[in-house]
Amino acid sequence: MQRAYDLSMAAQNLASHIDAQPEAHDRLYKQIALRIAELIEHGTMRPGERIPSVRELSEQEEVSIATVTQAYRVLESRGLIAARPQSGYYVRAKLWSPPPEPSKSRPTRNATRVSVNDLVMDVLKATHAPALVGFGAAMPSPQLLPTQQLHRTMASVARRHALLCNSCDIPPGNLNLRTQVARRAMESGCTLSPEEIVTTCGCQEALNLCLRAVARPGDTIAIESPTYYGILQIIEALGMKACEIPTHPREGVCLDELIKRLNCCRIRACIFSLNYSNPLGSCMPDEKKAQLVRILAERGVPLIEDDLYGNLPHSPHRPKTAKAFDKHGLVLLCDSFTKTLAPGMRVGWTAPGRFKTQVEHLKFISSIGTPTLLQMTIAEFLANGGYDHHLRKLRRFYGEQVPRVTQAITKYFPEDTKVTRPAGGYVLWVELPPRVDSLELFRRALAERISIAPGPIFSPKQKFQNFIRLSCGAPWTEAMDQALLKLGQLIARMM
Amino acid sequence: MQRAYDLSMAAQNLASHIDAQPEAHDRLYKQIALRIAELIEHGTMRPGERIPSVRELSEQEEVSIATVTQAYRVLESRGLIAARPQSGYYVRAKLWSPPPEPSKSRPTRNATRVSVNDLVMDVLKATHAPALVGFGAAMPSPQLLPTQQLHRTMASVARRHALLCNSCDIPPGNLNLRTQVARRAMESGCTLSPEEIVTTCGCQEALNLCLRAVARPGDTIAIESPTYYGILQIIEALGMKACEIPTHPREGVCLDELIKRLNCCRIRACIFSLNYSNPLGSCMPDEKKAQLVRILAERGVPLIEDDLYGNLPHSPHRPKTAKAFDKHGLVLLCDSFTKTLAPGMRVGWTAPGRFKTQVEHLKFISSIGTPTLLQMTIAEFLANGGYDHHLRKLRRFYGEQVPRVTQAITKYFPEDTKVTRPAGGYVLWVELPPRVDSLELFRRALAERISIAPGPIFSPKQKFQNFIRLSCGAPWTEAMDQALLKLGQLIARMM
Repeated sequence: MQRAYDLSMAAQNLASHIDAQPEAHDRLYKQIALRIAELIEHGTMRPGERIPSVRELSEQEEVSIATVTQAYRVLESRGLIAARPQSGYYVRAKLWSPPPEPSKSRPTRNATRVSVNDLVMDVLKATHAPALVGFGAAMPSPQLLPTQQLHRTMASVARRHALLCNSCDIPPGNLNLRTQVARRAMESGCTLSPEEIVTTCGCQEALNLCLRAVARPGDTIAIESPTYYGILQIIEALGMKACEIPTHPREGVCLDELIKRLNCCRIRACIFSLNYSNPLGSCMPDEKKAQLVRILAERGVPLIEDDLYGNLPHSPHRPKTAKAFDKHGLVLLCDSFTKTLAPGMRVGWTAPGRFKTQVEHLKFISSIGTPTLLQMTIAEFLANGGYDHHLRKLRRFYGEQVPRVTQAITKYFPEDTKVTRPAGGYVLWVELPPRVDSLELFRRALAERISIAPGPIFSPKQKFQNFIRLSCGAPWTEAMDQALLKLGQLIARMM
Repeated sequence: MQRAYDLSMAAQNLASHIDAQPEAHDRLYKQIALRIAELIEHGTMRPGERIPSVRELSEQEEVSIATVTQAYRVLESRGLIAARPQSGYYVRAKLWSPPPEPSKSRPTRNATRVSVNDLVMDVLKATHAPALVGFGAAMPSPQLLPTQQLHRTMASVARRHALLCNSCDIPPGNLNLRTQVARRAMESGCTLSPEEIVTTCGCQEALNLCLRAVARPGDTIAIESPTYYGILQIIEALGMKACEIPTHPREGVCLDELIKRLNCCRIRACIFSLNYSNPLGSCMPDEKKAQLVRILAERGVPLIEDDLYGNLPHSPHRPKTAKAFDKHGLVLLCDSFTKTLAPGMRVGWTAPGRFKTQVEHLKFISSIGTPTLLQMTIAEFLANGGYDHHLRKLRRFYGEQVPRVTQAITKYFPEDTKVTRPAGGYVLWVELPPRVDSLELFRRALAERISIAPGPIFSPKQKFQNFIRLSCGAPWTEAMDQALLKLGQLIARMM
């Protein structure tokens, strides 16, 4: 399965990456990085060859030292060149090659009660403690978000609509927000009207409402394996059962296996995250999504689609949602702005298809409404705040950050470590050697003030004992590098 | 039961009312109103006697026309004087006497499935339509709230804690807010620490979490009769059963009857609103609360206490909560700031006693966290924003508004109408003549663009068919007077 990285691939990647950035061409350093990448790609500069020093190139091109330095950093982070102390930069002789990927999961066939809640809460409490080097919580760092701009938008909205903002907004929720959401859903291939949308307190509430709308206590729900612990907790708290479907780390849920389960278990509904799932990072190809929707429609089984990471591809274009292929109102699409814009605001939404009335009622019953001012603020930001520009920046950032963390894992973790290669989102699913107990690793790491998410919280019966999830949501720091080094040492001691 | 109103009582009421307002004595018009009230009380001005015209008094006292007008309005709204067209003001010959109260409710003895959700949602959708004269929704008018000040506080908090405010805040929630809530709980007789509190998305979420923490589908929950429809909806949505306890319009749940039900039905938990319940307005005397807590503790039955209106007495001092008498951690106190400060923010909290861990976990599962900025804003407002001053104003307002609406009901509704006399909150529970179908009245009133809440939404099996709830949450207008006149006419036609 291992994809060999070669020089020309890396150079091409860089080229397409820079091409995809509309504003990049006016940045001098990117032009320079691009040109050197081309020279490497075409073999003009050969592996092991020294490239001009920063000063040389700066004089030759009549640009500043800073510009060249920045260009070389881009080339370095992309694995095209490497610095040798006291000697300058060289074209990499042997390019970094990423570790192998975990294989498809093989959960038990039976539906099972979920028993993970207490463990999850223990882990979460520990993970949210301050002053940790955090690979635990899958949250974007607030530094990456347009927080001040959001707050300015909020102040302006509050000024212009004071009384409205302090009124209660009952379901389906604020029309401005629903209109913006519907407009943006086109990007994921959906044609939605504002009337089809219910706003919620984040994606988690949306998932709760949708699951309660389609299933009852005792019912069996098909899930990915591994799956986001929040979904497991919902299933557990509602007294439902989970049926894990084998899931491929690149392509997501295995449709053949899903069909087998649909035929033998009484599956009431599915909850899948098809785009950059958490923790696996898998992204189901669009044609396979169409097939999935067909398979479920034939059996009348609803699909709750958690698209929380769908807006975070590492390339410029986002994949479709299963909802885009839904002709029967059986897909309940859930999403929020917590991972891309405003974790603190907890504004989300769902387009629950034919279950809209039930979801709307359940929303009222659960929490009456979503805070009006926050809905209005997000709506205004989506309409006028440069959300697209922000998303592009965030996508590029994660597109660089995820390989960077992978690279450090390659460097510091034992040789037989396996790591996913997500094409979007910001979590890595790491398979450690079989003897490593990730819960023990979690505790030892905490003692070093490093947080990770241990594998067992992503499984109904606490499997995946030698797996961990690492979140790459924060900007790279030297402390992170040191923390990964330390983690590698802790792992080595446990083998 | 009818309390005769006489002149001296009304005058004394006005005096104690004005005394209770710390800043009132420096207001000229109130001094004048008070002096005239005294003259009436002592018989110096007699029933039917003409009092000085506005102009006369203005000259005599050397104050403005506006000041005297305002003083006369206060006296009029308190029922001490009456205007006769073209003739001036007179001491009222016969003072307004309020209609009789409804008697104690007599629900069936059996636990029952709840079936009210669809009706409630139909009513709510209609009730929230704009351009209605609204007696339907029990929401404070945003005009009565310090909305702009709240928004300024929010802007300031956002500026000072930008990154924090855009971070996710997991349960138990923001410490500043929990500290403020704990501090204020002393007023209701509770000694709480911030560690005992979980913040929520409004009181409705708190009630959901608490009920899920103490009971399972199929369990029987004791409720007041009538009870707030939101509670009925939660019970219905969770597949639980309700057991209605006879409830007195002044003193709340009948403890003898509760004991009978506890002995014969398997009651898993109680949900009661002991202070100014919605819709009945009953307030259980504090010593009876102590008894209630004892009765339940003997049987190990948890009490979910909805204190949403506890902060809105019409007098200066608020009653205690049952939580104040709880020695065993069996009372789960729920409250929010939606009725007193910020309906649009949906910030609430619960002190769930020994069920704290379960409630905290369920909060995470249901909606991860409550928006951080909103929690911080409310905390800051409670600490420095003059919440007490605002509460005093709001209490006075409702203390005047509720009798005013009652007065209009007396004037316009059929003679055998019965109306509650709540000592807090802002809803009236009105018993119409037996033949009047309040759902039909609701529809006919809507056609006239008037909203009311029909009785059946407050009962598990849609009883109370000749009852309506009128909310007095908005400032008095001529349109409201006309709407009540119209309602009276509609009722008369249905008899």
